[in-house]
Amino acid sequence: MIQMSLVQIDNYGPWTVDPAPKREADIQILQSSFYADVQHQFSSRDGLAFATRFDNILAISNGIDKDAHRRIQQSLQARYPFTLSIGVGTGRTALEAQEEATRHIHQAGSAQSSRTAVVEGTFLDSGRVDIGHFDIDDATGTITDVLSAYDAYLAVKRAYLILAQGLRELGATAFFVGGDNIIAPVNGVDRKDICALLTRLKEHEDVPLKVGFGTGSNAHEADLAAKHELEHIRSLNGAARDAASCRHQV
Amino acid sequence: MIQMSLVQIDNYGPWTVDPAPKREADIQILQSSFYADVQHQFSSRDGLAFATRFDNILAISNGIDKDAHRRIQQSLQARYPFTLSIGVGTGRTALEAQEEATRHIHQAGSAQSSRTAVVEGTFLDSGRVDIGHFDIDDATGTITDVLSAYDAYLAVKRAYLILAQGLRELGATAFFVGGDNIIAPVNGVDRKDICALLTRLKEHEDVPLKVGFGTGSNAHEADLAAKHELEHIRSLNGAARDAASCRHQV
Amino acid sequence: MIQMSLVQIDNYGPWTVDPAPKREADIQILQSSFYADVQHQFSSRDGLAFATRFDNILAISNGIDKDAHRRIQQSLQARYPFTLSIGVGTGRTALEAQEEATRHIHQAGSAQSSRTAVVEGTFLDSGRVDIGHFDIDDATGTITDVLSAYDAYLAVKRAYLILAQGLRELGATAFFVGGDNIIAPVNGVDRKDICALLTRLKEHEDVPLKVGFGTGSNAHEADLAAKHELEHIRSLNGAARDAASCRHQV
Amino acid sequence: MIQMSLVQIDNYGPWTVDPAPKREADIQILQSSFYADVQHQFSSRDGLAFATRFDNILAISNGIDKDAHRRIQQSLQARYPFTLSIGVGTGRTALEAQEEATRHIHQAGSAQSSRTAVVEGTFLDSGRVDIGHFDIDDATGTITDVLSAYDAYLAVKRAYLILAQGLRELGATAFFVGGDNIIAPVNGVDRKDICALLTRLKEHEDVPLKVGFGTGSNAHEADLAAKHELEHIRSLNGAARDAASCRHQV
Repeated sequence: MIQMSLVQIDNYGPWTVDPAPKREADIQILQSSFYADVQHQFSSRDGLAFATRFDNILAISNGIDKDAHRRIQQSLQARYPFTLSIGVGTGRTALEAQEEATRHIHQAGSAQSSRTAVVEGTFLDSGRVDIGHFDIDDATGTITDVLSAYDAYLAVKRAYLILAQGLRELGATAFFVGGDNIIAPVNGVDRKDICALLTRLKEHEDVPLKVGFGTGSNAHEADLAAKHELEHIRSLNGAARDAASCRHQV
Repeated sequence: MIQMSLVQIDNYGPWTVDPAPKREADIQILQSSFYADVQHQFSSRDGLAFATRFDNILAISNGIDKDAHRRIQQSLQARYPFTLSIGVGTGRTALEAQEEATRHIHQAGSAQSSRTAVVEGTFLDSGRVDIGHFDIDDATGTITDVLSAYDAYLAVKRAYLILAQGLRELGATAFFVGGDNIIAPVNGVDRKDICALLTRLKEHEDVPLKVGFGTGSNAHEADLAAKHELEHIRSLNGAARDAASCRHQV
Repeated sequence: MIQMSLVQIDNYGPWTVDPAPKREADIQILQSSFYADVQHQFSSRDGLAFATRFDNILAISNGIDKDAHRRIQQSLQARYPFTLSIGVGTGRTALEAQEEATRHIHQAGSAQSSRTAVVEGTFLDSGRVDIGHFDIDDATGTITDVLSAYDAYLAVKRAYLILAQGLRELGATAFFVGGDNIIAPVNGVDRKDICALLTRLKEHEDVPLKVGFGTGSNAHEADLAAKHELEHIRSLNGAARDAASCRHQV
Repeated sequence: MIQMSLVQIDNYGPWTVDPAPKREADIQILQSSFYADVQHQFSSRDGLAFATRFDNILAISNGIDKDAHRRIQQSLQARYPFTLSIGVGTGRTALEAQEEATRHIHQAGSAQSSRTAVVEGTFLDSGRVDIGHFDIDDATGTITDVLSAYDAYLAVKRAYLILAQGLRELGATAFFVGGDNIIAPVNGVDRKDICALLTRLKEHEDVPLKVGFGTGSNAHEADLAAKHELEHIRSLNGAARDAASCRHQV
């Protein structure tokens, strides 16, 4: 079972244009500082937050109880010119968990309403986190050093979206985390199905991905294990790499 | 003519796994702090930076000369555990400008090489910036308050990618800036073509976007003007809105 | 018993002038970001850090064990262009605790040496924190709104230094935390002695301070209780305030 | 002539305890982030800000006009849960300049009032900045590596206060900037008087300081020149150092 939290800024859209549209650069600095702050709060408790839309942030939060969420909410709110709400849900898959987290937020009111500073949710006593950490094969050699920066960006974003849409059908969520890296909480999903997906993406979409898997009692442990496996795969060469890599296990 | 800058962290990939994979949360805080810092540097000089892949950041930099770029580079480098390089280019379109910016970086060496702290480029004496500031029609009512947070994220990312791919064929770049907002430097692109693209996206992809346009001698002025136009469109209702909005001008 | 941690940047002085003196503004942004980051790390574990000299930061760390300190060290190190060491000590008073914390650092090597990334110390299984939270009586009316900003700053710094020197003789440390506020871990010190000190400072130094006391199993709880008591004193008027305030209890 | 700016948070004291005292760690992170942000704003325009009391920040602002100050004010305000006001003054000495800056703030209303977002001041068309950059002789060998961290902190703070009080009589302000470094805008002050002061402080207060001087059209240039001179003095040994150093020029 995985636990996920949705951090949503209250009434953010109207704030960005009240009384007149704010400078975009100020909004960008605010949003990225806010995400860094949210990440600080969750990661010091072994969770892991994903920026997604910046005014909506999703986090894997196994091991973080309601009191801690209330405190995260208060600590953030004390430093920003807006309030925020947090919904928490649990599920067999990350998809289910974040659906429940969202439901708690929806029930408390619209994103553009007088809803203020709600913390509601369902929490796990224990549980575990399964993570797949993906990257693009030789992204430096085939994308970063070859394409223009913008085309490289679009290529990575396209790869992300295709992977995310494929994983979603399996019940997994996936988050772009910079460079050519994608982190997917894959609780409740058969790894063989993920490997089969990677094979399809390579053959039909020309998107060559590899993945390391990791498991732990929290997001930090699971992702670190996944990254170590991914490093191991990178360290192999030729046939050994192909044999080890998920791409060809199927 | 538009001027664009590419900020690329030197040898970043290897750093993230040396001597072992670093905690993902630390990397995320680092990346978002770095982007906020880059934005501070460009925006105090009326530029505007876009996070893109976080290890590669693109900025509209009209009015920022080589000395200022060198100083931005030094100031950032003094605060981070890595060096960074900046390439600058100019063009009739944003696509051309960032291609030239990338070329300067590519010529200086691979993203994973011993290249260190390069600042190279071509600079404009004057010039202007044309911006289209897009958002999704009633995103709160049709996406944020209705879908799960993850599906809302995917819906917005899909809308972004489809718009970006369409604009790219016209010579424009587009950047997701959070929420349901997309900023596109549209120098050298006919606005009628953009409106026609929006009509197509609505009819064939079910992606209902609207856009405000703005022009200025730098990114800040252009985007602020575009946001004011977008606010004006939002303030209209019914038929007046349809008449004003780009969606139906074609 | 109180536990205190000393965070010291390794070989910082030489770094600030290598290969040439860095821009002071860059150093200032780096130092204040570093302190905010250290505070994030300790406070999410209910500790409390004080900026002091910025390259040396002291924190009350009851309840934070060696593993957590190692992780704080690693997390900070991953985001800065220098390494850092942490020494931890315990004592009947804060003075003793920080002396032991410093001893661990001194034994590991000079502040300007090849010492790198040391985490050494003595840790408490349990313990408690006693805090006195001080401010200057009517600082707004007598200092901020009356003196020039610089003279107000000197007046507050002088008040701080006199209080700190007086408390030091009692075994307490004191930290300026902005505005006209001073936080002192006062474990092992008789409150009557502190009140007598305040009386002396008012009569002989013209420094009128008041204080709220608080106790808890960690720094956060203790300081919050102290601030509530200070607020209670502020809320009283005239004779009731004089009777409640430490200044006149002796 | 020097220009100085006073940034004062509006009605900050009441905010920190409304509706109840906020967590001190949250306040500390907020204050140090705010100072870093203010420094970003001034330094990208070649000014230099000093943290002082954190709710009151003084900056050397030669070359930064009223429009830029208004924009600094708006940019900061957009990212914090409070408003702020800025007063700007000019003078033959830094002391006079900040007095005038404070006067503009005082005239606009109390620090704890309904005053909101005021930007008022007097501005220089040109001007110059004279800086003395001080440090303590062999602070590592005599303080940091020898005393406990807290006693080292008090020793440095005492040295700062004594120097600041001495400089104030000469018309100069001085700001502690971390480690054992002090930056003093010394416009209009005879350097011989400063050297005589250093001799007195060494002989009568056992505070051994050295200083490098620099001059420029803005704070950045002046301080960098001062730091280079200070580095030059550090690089000398024995008699050459004594001859070069301000301590013995008198």
